Amino acid sequence: MATINQNFNKLAGGYLFPEIARRANAYQNENPQKVLYRLGIGNTTEALTPSVIKAMAQKVEDLSKRETYSGYGDEQGDKALREAISDFYKKREISLAADEIFISDGAKSDAANIQSLFATDNIVAIQNPAYPVYVDTNVVSGRSSDYDQKKNQYSKFVYLSGTKENNFFSPPPKEKVDLIYLCSPNNPTGAVATKEQLQQYVDYAKKQRAIIIFDAAYSEYISDADLPKSIYEIPGAYECAIEINSFSKFAGFTGVRVGWSVVPKKTVVENSVEGELNRHWFRRQVTFFNGASNISQAGALAVLSDEGLAEAKELIGYYMENARIIREALETLNLVVFGGDNAPYLWVETPNNLDSWQFFDQLLNQCQVIATPGVGFGSEGQNYVRFSAFGHRENILAAVKSIKENLVI
Amino acid sequence: MATINQNFNKLAGGYLFPEIARRANAYQNENPQKVLYRLGIGNTTEALTPSVIKAMAQKVEDLSKRETYSGYGDEQGDKALREAISDFYKKREISLAADEIFISDGAKSDAANIQSLFATDNIVAIQNPAYPVYVDTNVVSGRSSDYDQKKNQYSKFVYLSGTKENNFFSPPPKEKVDLIYLCSPNNPTGAVATKEQLQQYVDYAKKQRAIIIFDAAYSEYISDADLPKSIYEIPGAYECAIEINSFSKFAGFTGVRVGWSVVPKKTVVENSVEGELNRHWFRRQVTFFNGASNISQAGALAVLSDEGLAEAKELIGYYMENARIIREALETLNLVVFGGDNAPYLWVETPNNLDSWQFFDQLLNQCQVIATPGVGFGSEGQNYVRFSAFGHRENILAAVKSIKENLVI
Repeated sequence: MATINQNFNKLAGGYLFPEIARRANAYQNENPQKVLYRLGIGNTTEALTPSVIKAMAQKVEDLSKRETYSGYGDEQGDKALREAISDFYKKREISLAADEIFISDGAKSDAANIQSLFATDNIVAIQNPAYPVYVDTNVVSGRSSDYDQKKNQYSKFVYLSGTKENNFFSPPPKEKVDLIYLCSPNNPTGAVATKEQLQQYVDYAKKQRAIIIFDAAYSEYISDADLPKSIYEIPGAYECAIEINSFSKFAGFTGVRVGWSVVPKKTVVENSVEGELNRHWFRRQVTFFNGASNISQAGALAVLSDEGLAEAKELIGYYMENARIIREALETLNLVVFGGDNAPYLWVETPNNLDSWQFFDQLLNQCQVIATPGVGFGSEGQNYVRFSAFGHRENILAAVKSIKENLVI
Repeated sequence: MATINQNFNKLAGGYLFPEIARRANAYQNENPQKVLYRLGIGNTTEALTPSVIKAMAQKVEDLSKRETYSGYGDEQGDKALREAISDFYKKREISLAADEIFISDGAKSDAANIQSLFATDNIVAIQNPAYPVYVDTNVVSGRSSDYDQKKNQYSKFVYLSGTKENNFFSPPPKEKVDLIYLCSPNNPTGAVATKEQLQQYVDYAKKQRAIIIFDAAYSEYISDADLPKSIYEIPGAYECAIEINSFSKFAGFTGVRVGWSVVPKKTVVENSVEGELNRHWFRRQVTFFNGASNISQAGALAVLSDEGLAEAKELIGYYMENARIIREALETLNLVVFGGDNAPYLWVETPNNLDSWQFFDQLLNQCQVIATPGVGFGSEGQNYVRFSAFGHRENILAAVKSIKENLVI
């Protein structure tokens, strides 16, 4: 008698985006003449850049001829791409060998699967608010207690509250934890950890022999030279940190699907020796995965060329100008806005102590603007909404015009 | 103190392909003037077909313009592709809705991840010999005992011995098991289960409330109209079977990466209701995965057009002609050959009671031909080697010429 993995039933309803869609559709049906402005989802909207297109078109052509066709690549990714990422880190004086880098089909897969390296009784610490994947994958894998609907939390997890008092980046927990998920620049708050803040976590992890899982998917949006783009800029991090990154927001690969993870050979846990975690992640990837698409990997390699990097910078600049436009408009209305300076997300305090969904409804009904209710990312998001800077400029301008003209606070 | 998932240390060394490479390299170094013929790996070698190339080139061009660019798609796959697969099944009178079909980055990922739907105490039955992914992913997920090196087995698993006496397809086990992995056409033996054989499994599964995980990645290589290409051709299968398939061998997508899984709403286990497994697999995919590459999915959709299917059939015919050529040559030498008629693999009994590696070495040393030692797929593979029919025709012809001229039995 086969039986289901009961942990799936512990999952709180993943109802955030479906509920947004439901309310948006209901409004649209009642107001068919109105145009909705979607600033909710972190989805790229601008074309891939010329060098990426050229490389992928060439790869497709290569696959059309038997002389240049290729089938299975290495599960851990094309060596040329892993070496290019190694070189990319080297520019920031970070030393990672190509066999410490693993190419995947995106940061989400890596963020979801990395927990399988660790024992199921390990205690997980998660930022609050946070990207739901860290929470949900640990629930499915058996590291949580039941969901406490009242608290909007799982009691076995340790939540690291990000509030305006701590600039949305909590210090390390007082209790002992084993796996710590950190996302910087943060989704959803747009907050970026300083070197000092990350150093506290590295010190904590080394002392407690904990592992930091550092999600750097938005790192290329950092323009402030003093802010760290990688956890490996922090002394001691090689021994205790795994990093996850992606070409999705870096270069518009949300649909093309390439990411990478870094498991340094020096990274160790209580009952492992140097190199063991790296070897297990290799074994995990060659066993559960068969490599990212070769066309997509050809595109990713082009991103890392000088030309590709210059184009990616321009693309990021476009979205960050969107962020600036949104921030300026919201501040004109005396709304309190966080993030959006080194990240493509703006974390906006609701006016009049409204809860997330109340302000969501107000924005929808008065301005036809769709934001994301902060509470969908955790209990600390209750009095916030997230604005995304991804969008065509003309839509962003139209959205902020509507907010400025129609929002009654 | 983070601790590692100790199940990784239970894994027997995944040393088959590295060991093949080591012996091949050693031979090449000693005999630098010799040309090696690689018939070991199941990797496609021929160009992608025109309609696939056209669709993917178009998609790349679409991504180059903001008007036609798209980012994230649905995690479970593009609806048009899921509907096309539903229609593809319909031609064989199999009725599956688009929301019972999930697009992935390949059959390996699905074969590896599907076990996460089930409780870790479920008893797993695996064919012997078998594709190692079924075994290894259940070891990592905690369903095995320790590895018994002497037996080349994990004692908690139930092995279904495929021998020449049962045409390499064992009847259902006498004991009670919960999850049953079946691969037909089989990798590595090339055996194809008959409808009667699969009916026995469906009857067993319904009686025991077990789940069949049916890997049909090679189904398009079946030309015999009496042999089932899908488990859903068997009455009762919707209630107890999950199917996994892929465009890899179907249309040369080994590097492009698209597969699919089917979890019918009717499929139930002991403690689930109708629709629950389907819903959990949906939740699994949207949580751990972000969709296959949009370029790759555009190519897969083209495979399922009338033109694409005709081209795929031709491609498969090419590889099956290779299989015929290999079989004919080996039989000329009075070797005993199984498979290769409805599958791209030939399962060849070693002469003179040699073990797998001894015959591997003989083929390498005498003929410069690389086959795959059967024992790498399980203990029942000990006196066999696997030949793969994937390869350029000229290489296949040169390899069989060398075998015919040089093999001393």
